[in-house]
Amino acid sequence: MSTSHHVVVIGGGFAGLETVHRLAGADTRITIVDRRNHHLFQPLLYQVATASLATSEIAWPIRHLFRRRRDVTTLLAEVSGVDAARREVALSTGETLHYDTLVVATGATHAYFGHDDWEPHAPGLKTLEDATTVRRRILVAFERAEAETDPARRAALLTFVVIGAGPTGVELAGTIAELARATLPGDFRRIDTRSSRVVLVEAGPRILPSFDATLAAYAHRELQRIGVEVRTGVPVTACGPEGVVIGEEGLPAATVIWAAGVRASPAGAWLDAPMDRAGRVRVEADLTLPARPEIFVIGDTASVTDQDGRPVPGIAPAAKQQGRHVAATIRRRLAGDAAPRPFAYSHAGSLATIGKRVAIIDFGRVKLKGWLAWWLWGLAHIYFLIGVRNRLSVALSWLWIHVRDQRSARLITQRDVRQADPGRTGRSEPAPSVSAPG
Amino acid sequence: MSTSHHVVVIGGGFAGLETVHRLAGADTRITIVDRRNHHLFQPLLYQVATASLATSEIAWPIRHLFRRRRDVTTLLAEVSGVDAARREVALSTGETLHYDTLVVATGATHAYFGHDDWEPHAPGLKTLEDATTVRRRILVAFERAEAETDPARRAALLTFVVIGAGPTGVELAGTIAELARATLPGDFRRIDTRSSRVVLVEAGPRILPSFDATLAAYAHRELQRIGVEVRTGVPVTACGPEGVVIGEEGLPAATVIWAAGVRASPAGAWLDAPMDRAGRVRVEADLTLPARPEIFVIGDTASVTDQDGRPVPGIAPAAKQQGRHVAATIRRRLAGDAAPRPFAYSHAGSLATIGKRVAIIDFGRVKLKGWLAWWLWGLAHIYFLIGVRNRLSVALSWLWIHVRDQRSARLITQRDVRQADPGRTGRSEPAPSVSAPG
Repeated sequence: MSTSHHVVVIGGGFAGLETVHRLAGADTRITIVDRRNHHLFQPLLYQVATASLATSEIAWPIRHLFRRRRDVTTLLAEVSGVDAARREVALSTGETLHYDTLVVATGATHAYFGHDDWEPHAPGLKTLEDATTVRRRILVAFERAEAETDPARRAALLTFVVIGAGPTGVELAGTIAELARATLPGDFRRIDTRSSRVVLVEAGPRILPSFDATLAAYAHRELQRIGVEVRTGVPVTACGPEGVVIGEEGLPAATVIWAAGVRASPAGAWLDAPMDRAGRVRVEADLTLPARPEIFVIGDTASVTDQDGRPVPGIAPAAKQQGRHVAATIRRRLAGDAAPRPFAYSHAGSLATIGKRVAIIDFGRVKLKGWLAWWLWGLAHIYFLIGVRNRLSVALSWLWIHVRDQRSARLITQRDVRQADPGRTGRSEPAPSVSAPG
Repeated sequence: MSTSHHVVVIGGGFAGLETVHRLAGADTRITIVDRRNHHLFQPLLYQVATASLATSEIAWPIRHLFRRRRDVTTLLAEVSGVDAARREVALSTGETLHYDTLVVATGATHAYFGHDDWEPHAPGLKTLEDATTVRRRILVAFERAEAETDPARRAALLTFVVIGAGPTGVELAGTIAELARATLPGDFRRIDTRSSRVVLVEAGPRILPSFDATLAAYAHRELQRIGVEVRTGVPVTACGPEGVVIGEEGLPAATVIWAAGVRASPAGAWLDAPMDRAGRVRVEADLTLPARPEIFVIGDTASVTDQDGRPVPGIAPAAKQQGRHVAATIRRRLAGDAAPRPFAYSHAGSLATIGKRVAIIDFGRVKLKGWLAWWLWGLAHIYFLIGVRNRLSVALSWLWIHVRDQRSARLITQRDVRQADPGRTGRSEPAPSVSAPG
């Protein structure tokens, strides 16, 4: 056991991984703990949910990513508590880790804004299991529609509601519409999958609020062009086994997907730290806990503002920048410079795809839309995937979708058909377990 | 609705699929029913269980395979019963199908020879969910060993027992040994995965009884060379949460996999037909039920013998030949020739791989072993996969394993870590549900 500075990182998402990467060669030994064995490329999770990519194309074993880093130990475990006074992290395995520096990067999970009872009816999209659950529900809905003779029930089975029109909601709705209109039609005999309704509901005044209004309006039109009904300025007021109520209008729908909000993981409770309304830990400008300079909280777990006082968005580049800042701070401290320096967020841009042909990119001054933006989006995402093999595999999957409209991962798994089948009168499936990384 | 001859095929395995393929252009309309939405390439299922391939690389939606066949309707449903007098199949969806010809090809599931209580401790390998369950257990065992401090418990976590030394057992044991010795060592810090024990247990006098004795002896030596302990001539007499008893010797092991036997699906009970000891339906020489010429039972569901009175093996080529025979019989009958013709089995050969470098092929007179056999095995399996995209993808996965020892699908999914973790004293995981295709 080395006597060097021990950094414990909780969470193998973008923030935690970047912290570890940027500490390469420093005089530290690192233990990274996650309750999952894999890092997940969340920006493409909606593509697993829509049968476009396989689970293994966007997830990698964390310990494999650090196989060449002898200074890094990876542990699969849940954190059961943090004792900040003793500088100890207690793990579900019974082990206790003593740290010199603690980095908490445990991410976020879905938030239902006081409607937790909606969760079984409108699963969100944060983990691989969430994605295969949504995939199963979408595919089973088409299967059940093929077997259904009652026209009203068949219509409900062919209605897909996505709640929340941020990038994930927009990308999900667009891909489901293309699945129904381009990929599936030839496969069914009794139903016309092109008659499916895909409804994107947004309580706010417009879709993609984090984008420039002109780009968002373009995305709105493109969504409509590929067959998505966009409903803005009206909230979902009820959500149950039969469908949703949008404002005061009931919409029978067998498949409802939640893309409307997230809540930070319970790290704030472990740390007994001040939190904002979404459960995010309020950190100092240098990303440390107040009066606990040895504890950093970063990524979706932290409430961070940029230089202009605006909240830093919960996206991968922001998480990575925070990880980089933490690693730099640790290195400076080890070199004897303990003066805190504030984290400065630099927004590179916002990206979203609408179906398989167009995308929008908001770089701030430069704005791109259409097929060129789609190719840039695709190349950027392939570039950020880890490993040559995954880049080839994802490129191959996208090529097949683009050219042949064939999606390679149309598998209904996890349960047998009796359980997977939500039943004739409603969904009897148990609520998917909420799981925050970390 | 056409008035042509209606063929109902239950089961989308090799036998059922081949029947449908060979009826292309015949004056029939076909309904194929399966409780899964996908056809599974079972010969490579052990590669999913050992993280070598992703689930979507060896499974295809059945309805997509027949998208260009307007005469074929695919239904995702369970069969709840067959009324042979009325020629009706009742489905779980409430629908009743009337048939002119019924083809039952519902496959087989694991058999524990009177020890059904072993199933939770020694899962078998028949479905995609079985494979991801086994994959999770193997990967979780290494993770728990990394966190374990007690040497005896650590040793049990690093002991993998495969029961049954047919091709599946041999291939599983060889691949687990390579996983432990070549893929994983660099990823762990506290354990040396190369110290893992992989024990292949066979009650019979030698491994691979369906192969020539010289080839089996070669496979035996090769297994030992890559680190598998082969125990023949001794049965497993107990199997529980702590491990197995081989003969009278207790072997503590966290991971036990069942590859020792199968039992036919419950189709015999639906049909009220005579069955053999393994639950297979005894069919006439032309593969029909006695006194029910309009009902065929084929594949692993049927007890069929070859011209010499030997049982036809439960392998993909045999299932396909039976499907072809059924399609030819239906065509002849539609042409007015109702005379029964016996099914004649032609054994092309037996193949098995031992790890990632050598294989054995028993063509009868010609026998091959070593790296050339491995390449032939690989090419044959890539050829039999469906679709160019899957062939490319599997070739890519194998290339990475062969050259870089990297396995792309090392994902622990399905449950959260608390549930995935079998606990400190034993496996608390519920029994995986037994599921027969069809």
